Amino acid sequence: MTVEIPTRAVPSVQERPTTGDADTPLVRVGIAGIGQQTREHLLPALLGLPAARLRAVVDPAEPARDDLAERLGIRRRYSRVEDLLEAGEVDCVIAACPPQAHEQIAAACLDAGVPVFLEKPPAVTTQGLVALAVQASAGAVVSGVGMNFRWAAPILHLAGLLAGGEYGQVEMVTVRHVASKPRAPMWGMDLWRSFMLAQAIHPIDLLITLAGSPPREVRSGQRLGPDSVTIGVQVEFDNGAIGTLVTGTQAPRFEHRIEVNTTTGVTLSLTDLTDLSIAGAPSSAQGATVRGETRRWRPSPMNVGYDRTGFEGELSAFLTSVSTGRAFTPAFEDLVPTYRLIDQIDPHRSAR
Amino acid sequence: MTVEIPTRAVPSVQERPTTGDADTPLVRVGIAGIGQQTREHLLPALLGLPAARLRAVVDPAEPARDDLAERLGIRRRYSRVEDLLEAGEVDCVIAACPPQAHEQIAAACLDAGVPVFLEKPPAVTTQGLVALAVQASAGAVVSGVGMNFRWAAPILHLAGLLAGGEYGQVEMVTVRHVASKPRAPMWGMDLWRSFMLAQAIHPIDLLITLAGSPPREVRSGQRLGPDSVTIGVQVEFDNGAIGTLVTGTQAPRFEHRIEVNTTTGVTLSLTDLTDLSIAGAPSSAQGATVRGETRRWRPSPMNVGYDRTGFEGELSAFLTSVSTGRAFTPAFEDLVPTYRLIDQIDPHRSAR
Amino acid sequence: MTVEIPTRAVPSVQERPTTGDADTPLVRVGIAGIGQQTREHLLPALLGLPAARLRAVVDPAEPARDDLAERLGIRRRYSRVEDLLEAGEVDCVIAACPPQAHEQIAAACLDAGVPVFLEKPPAVTTQGLVALAVQASAGAVVSGVGMNFRWAAPILHLAGLLAGGEYGQVEMVTVRHVASKPRAPMWGMDLWRSFMLAQAIHPIDLLITLAGSPPREVRSGQRLGPDSVTIGVQVEFDNGAIGTLVTGTQAPRFEHRIEVNTTTGVTLSLTDLTDLSIAGAPSSAQGATVRGETRRWRPSPMNVGYDRTGFEGELSAFLTSVSTGRAFTPAFEDLVPTYRLIDQIDPHRSAR
Amino acid sequence: MTVEIPTRAVPSVQERPTTGDADTPLVRVGIAGIGQQTREHLLPALLGLPAARLRAVVDPAEPARDDLAERLGIRRRYSRVEDLLEAGEVDCVIAACPPQAHEQIAAACLDAGVPVFLEKPPAVTTQGLVALAVQASAGAVVSGVGMNFRWAAPILHLAGLLAGGEYGQVEMVTVRHVASKPRAPMWGMDLWRSFMLAQAIHPIDLLITLAGSPPREVRSGQRLGPDSVTIGVQVEFDNGAIGTLVTGTQAPRFEHRIEVNTTTGVTLSLTDLTDLSIAGAPSSAQGATVRGETRRWRPSPMNVGYDRTGFEGELSAFLTSVSTGRAFTPAFEDLVPTYRLIDQIDPHRSAR
Repeated sequence: MTVEIPTRAVPSVQERPTTGDADTPLVRVGIAGIGQQTREHLLPALLGLPAARLRAVVDPAEPARDDLAERLGIRRRYSRVEDLLEAGEVDCVIAACPPQAHEQIAAACLDAGVPVFLEKPPAVTTQGLVALAVQASAGAVVSGVGMNFRWAAPILHLAGLLAGGEYGQVEMVTVRHVASKPRAPMWGMDLWRSFMLAQAIHPIDLLITLAGSPPREVRSGQRLGPDSVTIGVQVEFDNGAIGTLVTGTQAPRFEHRIEVNTTTGVTLSLTDLTDLSIAGAPSSAQGATVRGETRRWRPSPMNVGYDRTGFEGELSAFLTSVSTGRAFTPAFEDLVPTYRLIDQIDPHRSAR
Repeated sequence: MTVEIPTRAVPSVQERPTTGDADTPLVRVGIAGIGQQTREHLLPALLGLPAARLRAVVDPAEPARDDLAERLGIRRRYSRVEDLLEAGEVDCVIAACPPQAHEQIAAACLDAGVPVFLEKPPAVTTQGLVALAVQASAGAVVSGVGMNFRWAAPILHLAGLLAGGEYGQVEMVTVRHVASKPRAPMWGMDLWRSFMLAQAIHPIDLLITLAGSPPREVRSGQRLGPDSVTIGVQVEFDNGAIGTLVTGTQAPRFEHRIEVNTTTGVTLSLTDLTDLSIAGAPSSAQGATVRGETRRWRPSPMNVGYDRTGFEGELSAFLTSVSTGRAFTPAFEDLVPTYRLIDQIDPHRSAR
Repeated sequence: MTVEIPTRAVPSVQERPTTGDADTPLVRVGIAGIGQQTREHLLPALLGLPAARLRAVVDPAEPARDDLAERLGIRRRYSRVEDLLEAGEVDCVIAACPPQAHEQIAAACLDAGVPVFLEKPPAVTTQGLVALAVQASAGAVVSGVGMNFRWAAPILHLAGLLAGGEYGQVEMVTVRHVASKPRAPMWGMDLWRSFMLAQAIHPIDLLITLAGSPPREVRSGQRLGPDSVTIGVQVEFDNGAIGTLVTGTQAPRFEHRIEVNTTTGVTLSLTDLTDLSIAGAPSSAQGATVRGETRRWRPSPMNVGYDRTGFEGELSAFLTSVSTGRAFTPAFEDLVPTYRLIDQIDPHRSAR
Repeated sequence: MTVEIPTRAVPSVQERPTTGDADTPLVRVGIAGIGQQTREHLLPALLGLPAARLRAVVDPAEPARDDLAERLGIRRRYSRVEDLLEAGEVDCVIAACPPQAHEQIAAACLDAGVPVFLEKPPAVTTQGLVALAVQASAGAVVSGVGMNFRWAAPILHLAGLLAGGEYGQVEMVTVRHVASKPRAPMWGMDLWRSFMLAQAIHPIDLLITLAGSPPREVRSGQRLGPDSVTIGVQVEFDNGAIGTLVTGTQAPRFEHRIEVNTTTGVTLSLTDLTDLSIAGAPSSAQGATVRGETRRWRPSPMNVGYDRTGFEGELSAFLTSVSTGRAFTPAFEDLVPTYRLIDQIDPHRSAR
């Protein structure tokens, strides 16, 4: 039986908080999992946050864990998150592990009343995610999911423009997210679900977030090969917006594009999370719309920090939530619509 | 009752013939309709073809017709195509009129055994188009439809690469074709059908042509406003390819993009009919695939001739067909799958 | 001895006149030279101008000339421009021939008081050009040179923005114009001068025109190979602007870029005569300058007419000048600063 | 008196070494200077290098220094580099300070035989830099200058292609490097020299490095405003290559472009350190050159690590040089040609 929880309105992408100033309260962080995601993305971003104090590392792979801890001067090292929680030396746990471990780690943290941030995917099944959301809600513990695309600087810029209201409502949103992996099953799931939770979770989350409305009707066309997935999805949202997703594993290199058309005839498009163009909006100082003229925004070519990819922004915001007790977005419950949409287009649904 | 005709396999985009050499037999052309399409696209392209001899102009708007004829040194001027056909001085008729007139002009030409080229849309209804196709087929008369996108230099380049077989089969094809018009009904049709026959006919034709297979299943999501149309279409083709179309009237300026993923993991994308990139294919002299490297093809910035837009290519090929009697692509029958797909997603279908 | 003429202030790029309306007086045109430039660029552009009436063709190559005339319904055909002028049936002559012939044709036209438009290069030497300019000035006859880059739609857009004054003065202008030809001498000149008059004449003219001031000091670095020319030029203009030209024959395909920095910190750049971006200017409706945001202007991807390349614009403006007697820009005298700059960087100067 | 040192041939850009593996010997690092450059670029890059052990921080600003050391678990903290050197606990010093301090720190390190890496600019004057180069050479101590552009992934890719020899020799190299700062004097120098050492040092170094030859003749045009610098430089190199530099402070946002034409007619261009295109080289699997086709290389949009900007690469290579004793590039002496070129175009040269 699926326990139902009252899902919040689909959250809008928020502006990134500024936690960099001197008065930021320090937050003691425990890291669970020292895989590639932690080493390449989460740790560098955390090391750039003045408020963060890395106090403990949890991983059963002792030698690698101790090497990393040594290099960063972290003294507490555990093999199980329960031991960390018992020791009571951290204000929050940030975990990047397989989704099965995520469910267990999160349950332990929530039990202990310790805020917890899970890299995506936060859970194996919708049921598992709902259970965590219910537990977090019941205990009023801050929870978070690492959907870094939401916090990437160019997407925040795009979402900020849409939220400004100047361009009307979203009429049509198209996301193209074609990756070159996974080509093989992961996490003990079949290839289809591995792909959905490793890759498609991002564009589906963006589609729902940018449309700003829950899905009303979902249709999909899919082609499954032995080592490939190709999917087209169309969504009609409650507010009338039409969403289109083109996703799959067949790209030679990661391809990403978002295109939004609004009710005032403005097109916003973001290519490769870098190049944002705004067509049809007033572009001159006099407020006139010059035919053929677009506005274009790019991050500086020298900006290669972790606010570009969103890891810095999401972790900074999460630490602020830990300090203040205010909810973080996306919390566990905010991912439920994304998991449900994945279930709806699951070609093996009846078999599961 | 709809008369069924044997539809040819969905035609592939052909290489443009070279009709420019000295030995090309001259073809006497009669022009029907002197509207903007004729003046801005067809006439300049015809004037650039050495084989073309403009011999007659047909239009009931006498003063404008005679002005134009005067300027181009054309002596025969008629108000009705029947008079032109009776005079018997042309080898073919090229018509750019409202679709109702197209049906009548084509029927008259086919009756007279005179090859006829119709600008799109060639007919008001699928039934009307099928009737013309049957008549052309029965009389073995060369027919043609002006689907200039098929003949635009960058699309020919793209189609040529796909036809080469080096990249495998088409796995996924996405076309984005968002225009800024029509905003009001045209040709005595409602806005939805006006949009389909004026705009969406192009990307639907491209989707079918590039997939290289007839549609098996079609789904769409649509949003119709008083002066706007927003449509997402997903097509599963017989050969397993998945097609996605995003189209509408809400763009501030014409937006066009084609993206094709193939079974060998190559992505070909064409932006604004100008910029073609090929990712995942060998890119170096040694045949190696360099990670992160794409091939890119663009027409010369100085190439602004009518082969860019396809008008020159299609007219050149049509004149060759007139000379040789070989079939032209797309002939009337080749548009039937496109018209049928339009019918399938028609939201007012039951009401028609 | 070089005859000095009072050179006008360096002309600014003008907005294109609208000669397309019904009231435009007709202008009878004689074409001299039926080479590629005439057939591919000038004739199609002229055929698109309602005011133009092609009345005569001059070329000593009789069969080709008569074929072309036949196709376009032109009855008067001459081998020498003198015969055309004697017959007195045209209001102006448009010539696209080798520069030696240009000097002779222009002199004959000016003698007869007939306005004359010369494709570039208008003359072999600065002395020859000055002589024509003096003759045109003395006889008050309209003259013109076909510098189509000045009239290309994107350059007019750029020049219009600069002329608007909103962005301050030009501080720095860089033109990159690297071609793939000529690789061999033309027009009986050595390769260096062939290149300068066939290619470099364009960017030098743009540099002077966009700087809006005469050159004060010129420096260059050059590398001459048996079949290649590579040149870097730096110019300080009277108004303090700094111009840089990078030009040569070593590009695999024509490369073109203009970059302008202004005293208010705005950068305008135009790539491949297609893509104009404006950075540092207010970009939002509220007139604010958003960091990282640029404005971008492109002609429609479907706009491949001759206003893109400037041929239509310059011919339209020239016909208007013929009708009204007002000066056309660039007239013969307007090219003199360009010819003089070429002389200044001539590595064989002392030898000539 | 300027002491002359034998300058090495202008160094070529090297491939980045792989120091990330487990066998890399650990290198104990002392950091001197905790300003923005250290915090935003050098420290994050160092924290990503497994071989690096941060052992000491030197800065006279005690509270900020201790805060930073606390956060990173670094126990040794000094106000003067001499104290660090006396304590003898590091294998090298990495300094990012004003150039006056650089000269002093480097002299102390070289005296102590400790390898030293200086952020740019390494010295105030050419004389000062030569003195350091002589001292490093005499003591056979590894030295390095932080010219991160040389090590940025896209420039390494470009330099690797040029070094491959497949494209022939460099014929023409153009660098455009226009920044928005400095707008005011820095480091106790006038604005001109501040700009040269803070900004122009990069493109001049690239020009020399990419040309692969010492400058033979240098010309420049300059415009100096109260808060702006605008410079065009042309260089003829010993090997005949022609270099052009356009640089200044007038850009609204950092603008960067490198364009290289080679003797085989290939053009390589790199825009904004992101987008590398190769035109004129064979592009297909069959080794054929397709007209209009280019090859294009981009780092992944998700690659925002410090190898993009070169900080990681240069520090990794420097640590390897410290371990192995092999020379690092660029060493102090390698910057001498760059400093000399700056002197040659100094408008106040006679006054200094």
